[in-house]
Amino acid sequence: MESLIVIPEPTKKRLIQMMQLLLQFDKTRITSLEISELTGWKDSLIRHDLWLVGYNKGISNGYKVSDLLDSIRKILCVDSTLEDNKKNCCIVGLGRLGAALLDDDLFSESQFRIKAGFDSNINRIEILRSSFSLYPINNMANIIRQEKIIFAILCVKNKDAQNITNKLIDAKIEGIVNLTEVIVKVPSGIKVENISIINALQLLK
Amino acid sequence: MESLIVIPEPTKKRLIQMMQLLLQFDKTRITSLEISELTGWKDSLIRHDLWLVGYNKGISNGYKVSDLLDSIRKILCVDSTLEDNKKNCCIVGLGRLGAALLDDDLFSESQFRIKAGFDSNINRIEILRSSFSLYPINNMANIIRQEKIIFAILCVKNKDAQNITNKLIDAKIEGIVNLTEVIVKVPSGIKVENISIINALQLLK
Repeated sequence: MESLIVIPEPTKKRLIQMMQLLLQFDKTRITSLEISELTGWKDSLIRHDLWLVGYNKGISNGYKVSDLLDSIRKILCVDSTLEDNKKNCCIVGLGRLGAALLDDDLFSESQFRIKAGFDSNINRIEILRSSFSLYPINNMANIIRQEKIIFAILCVKNKDAQNITNKLIDAKIEGIVNLTEVIVKVPSGIKVENISIINALQLLK
Repeated sequence: MESLIVIPEPTKKRLIQMMQLLLQFDKTRITSLEISELTGWKDSLIRHDLWLVGYNKGISNGYKVSDLLDSIRKILCVDSTLEDNKKNCCIVGLGRLGAALLDDDLFSESQFRIKAGFDSNINRIEILRSSFSLYPINNMANIIRQEKIIFAILCVKNKDAQNITNKLIDAKIEGIVNLTEVIVKVPSGIKVENISIINALQLLK
């Protein structure tokens, strides 16, 4: 019945970050206060999130890190990083930023596998080195279907962002991580996560 | 008295994104419904945010884009992109990802100015091209002081993230955009915004 639990988006964001934090934590137990110190989130908020994960009692000597990690993984459906369960992704646009993501180390420990990179510049495709195949952007729809790619990381130039997004939608992509500075229009049902260094800097002010 | 308004963090995030959207909007008026369609946020949430900005009446024929933009800019203290008002930033770690940010176009339209890049590898500093100066990481504290740098974009290897963060804090940095996969510990008062492509992909699921 666990799949019936609807986790609010802000909680989901915190749980993902908490998972990352627990993976790096070097003790076997952790208290909500320690999580609070490491993340800056209010203690009560953390206990609310953990209550959603199934930890309905405050535990004075903290939570067992491995148990907590398993519970969060279960609730987020992060089953494992087994090759078979990985989700196929592609990188669209291999300029400076897109090319920086060709480093496969970035994704090796994750539940995601980059299956393809696309660029309109054929020379760039031939020059760049990567552990997965690179294709001309004209082949995008075919390769996405063929390689069962469901997510795209959008790194094209701002002026091409909407046009390429439309092509990705036609190719039946399910979600986009948008690294351009453009807010792209997508039909309902397609998820977009915007990543912007400028916006992040603005939040520091 | 405007500075007394405390804007909740989620509203701030939405306003920053709304600002970006308005800058790209090609009509002179926009309705909250149109903003809702473009962002996926609930209409009521948008009107709540705009109420905080000072638009306390629903306007049936929409808001004037330029007025709305001015109001949001004012509330977020985004005074202008004049050279004098720009905040000085640095990039720490010039591997593939850090080097991808050396493209000054990325920041040219923003309120931020990259003043320096740092890396422990002297060869890399000599090879890389950028419109601002690159320095060995040992000089970081001096340069940050000298160039009045207040924000850092952290692109070092995961294993070095905490160590370099400590050095940035010693150098009196005010905020960090963290592009590593490590949750870094900072004293209260120092802001950190984490940017993670893996986390963004996880949110698409």
